[in-house]
Amino acid sequence: MIKEPIITLLTDFGEEDPYVGSMKGVILSISPKARLVDLSHQIKRHDIRQGAFFLFSLVKYYPKGTIHLVVIDPGVGTERKAIIVQSENHFFVGPDNGVISLAAQNDGVRKVIEIENSDYYLQPVSETFHGRDIFAPVAAHLAKNKRIEEFGSVLEDWIQLRIPLATINKAEIKGEIIHIDRFGNLITNISREIFQKVHDLQRSFIEIKINNRELQVPLCSSYNEVKKGDFLGIFGSTDFLEISKNQESAADALNSQNQDKILVK
Amino acid sequence: MIKEPIITLLTDFGEEDPYVGSMKGVILSISPKARLVDLSHQIKRHDIRQGAFFLFSLVKYYPKGTIHLVVIDPGVGTERKAIIVQSENHFFVGPDNGVISLAAQNDGVRKVIEIENSDYYLQPVSETFHGRDIFAPVAAHLAKNKRIEEFGSVLEDWIQLRIPLATINKAEIKGEIIHIDRFGNLITNISREIFQKVHDLQRSFIEIKINNRELQVPLCSSYNEVKKGDFLGIFGSTDFLEISKNQESAADALNSQNQDKILVK
Amino acid sequence: MIKEPIITLLTDFGEEDPYVGSMKGVILSISPKARLVDLSHQIKRHDIRQGAFFLFSLVKYYPKGTIHLVVIDPGVGTERKAIIVQSENHFFVGPDNGVISLAAQNDGVRKVIEIENSDYYLQPVSETFHGRDIFAPVAAHLAKNKRIEEFGSVLEDWIQLRIPLATINKAEIKGEIIHIDRFGNLITNISREIFQKVHDLQRSFIEIKINNRELQVPLCSSYNEVKKGDFLGIFGSTDFLEISKNQESAADALNSQNQDKILVK
Repeated sequence: MIKEPIITLLTDFGEEDPYVGSMKGVILSISPKARLVDLSHQIKRHDIRQGAFFLFSLVKYYPKGTIHLVVIDPGVGTERKAIIVQSENHFFVGPDNGVISLAAQNDGVRKVIEIENSDYYLQPVSETFHGRDIFAPVAAHLAKNKRIEEFGSVLEDWIQLRIPLATINKAEIKGEIIHIDRFGNLITNISREIFQKVHDLQRSFIEIKINNRELQVPLCSSYNEVKKGDFLGIFGSTDFLEISKNQESAADALNSQNQDKILVK
Repeated sequence: MIKEPIITLLTDFGEEDPYVGSMKGVILSISPKARLVDLSHQIKRHDIRQGAFFLFSLVKYYPKGTIHLVVIDPGVGTERKAIIVQSENHFFVGPDNGVISLAAQNDGVRKVIEIENSDYYLQPVSETFHGRDIFAPVAAHLAKNKRIEEFGSVLEDWIQLRIPLATINKAEIKGEIIHIDRFGNLITNISREIFQKVHDLQRSFIEIKINNRELQVPLCSSYNEVKKGDFLGIFGSTDFLEISKNQESAADALNSQNQDKILVK
Repeated sequence: MIKEPIITLLTDFGEEDPYVGSMKGVILSISPKARLVDLSHQIKRHDIRQGAFFLFSLVKYYPKGTIHLVVIDPGVGTERKAIIVQSENHFFVGPDNGVISLAAQNDGVRKVIEIENSDYYLQPVSETFHGRDIFAPVAAHLAKNKRIEEFGSVLEDWIQLRIPLATINKAEIKGEIIHIDRFGNLITNISREIFQKVHDLQRSFIEIKINNRELQVPLCSSYNEVKKGDFLGIFGSTDFLEISKNQESAADALNSQNQDKILVK
């Protein structure tokens, strides 16, 4: 592990409340050399799926040994477990509700520990804010090179989400929208790999059906291959098919929402 | 003081304008080793009371010697004073309008200095942005171990807010809402200590009146002791009574606002 | 260059998507000692002009040798060039669309390099996210003291914006609003220098016309020289004339927008 370990923070806490600042204070009190990197605090409240996809999208760009502290935790105070996941290159600390799972699976899971050792908690532990009282101090102690086995015992059975895979039926691909970004791009679960099983990447147009609207859109490699305001299909920065409008919002134009179905003919 | 001093930033500047970035540049030009920690820039504009409560809620989690730079400053350019407050464990730099007071009182005030020494200002000093021209450079010089006496002389009479205390009348507690968080939790000024003077913490239900609506809500220690969408009372992460709805917004349901009255029978 | 180089980040990516976090990961993987400073990710999407003005306003407060990574890039994937600009005190990395130009001109441009050396790119380079695949890694390599000539060859002809200058016609100044801040202050392109050519800075009132509304407002040096809710004119923290309302929003009251015209008689 590097000398000034990186701890990233991903939460649904927003920035109007003192929750994120409290967690940062707890970490810096325990591990003064930790380098804090805000990933986002704007995950929709309680949206485990959005948090999981967010984390999945970017973990691979972080250096080996990074600790990712993830607090999207609608089940705080219930029997949901607290976990550390060690993957090939990263550590993750957060609730056992699936939010960590996509990123960790993608990197290759090596070990999952159920956090049980209250020596590493901030006392007294509130039943409403484990981010501050359990996850932040555990991440900070990890950053000081504590072995993960010191925090609890191995957990075999933890909650793992799957990105719903697009399915192929003859020449049609059935997928769904897994994220809509700030620019209104519709990011689908249709990977380049799946697409290639049915379609030629060199073809110039694809026919899609989305929200009962049928469109024929050009398959591009950059937004600006079409005129401003025109639709296009593109394999975006995460290598999934995106439906976009050049310099405008495809989501607004198509009135699309997360988890809407999409059909590619 | 530690070698790479922490300077936290708390403002009402938002993130669309260059104000926060200017302050960070000023600090790093003077004290290149300072570690900047954003607490929030989303305090409501000119809301001294929200800023004071925010700071009060989290200062205790920061390491000894942390410098808190607080710029919620509707009176910039008037005769309101600029101050440094040294408390038992922390330093605070900001306007003398009360925004620092709750946090400093809670930690134990040791000394208050009126900032007067223009050697430490960024010249020329604008009359509209002391955050950049006075508070940021003073915080940065503090981080370089300047003694606080070098910035000005002791101030005896400074502006101190008080959290309005809940009052007890026979078996009733009259309080008010002091903060509504992103999740719609209503945080009251009814501390666990005051509550215990009248009610048994072990009781299962409390009767409350809020916005002319009477509710009987269970007293819980975690949100999930009730069904999704049900109301509950809970002593939250700051040890004040909160009125919440499991996984929904109590504020929306009750149409509540900051400073609304609450009665607990 | 200092040992722990500062890299500032300015984008229109918002905080709901993994784009900013991806860039930070890329930088820290290449230059682990880089110090990341968020300027803002809340520039309006694709608003090159707002980004350029934002950067112009604050670059001078940063230490010599700071690297400014600027990704407001509606033309990603087109033939727009990628550039490094070295000015007297700073480095800038971003698209050649003008967003860097105001700040660099103001500091004194020394050299512009067209980024061409794909050895420094993250591979494979997507055609939709050069922020992550080109600009971030180039900024990170710059922070490791690579000479700028290693990234490409000198570019003579790059895109330079100009702040539209206010013009003088007899005793009238014609200007426009170049930014509206969070507090509703209307920041014009009328610099103190231009104003002085026509008006005495000591005068007490100015007559303005804005959105077909004529106002006589006092010329003040702080907001609080007028009563709460009254209009005023003031040379603000960037030394341009601002039309403000004490503790209220002038923009709301006058229904003003960016680029609205203003006439000072």
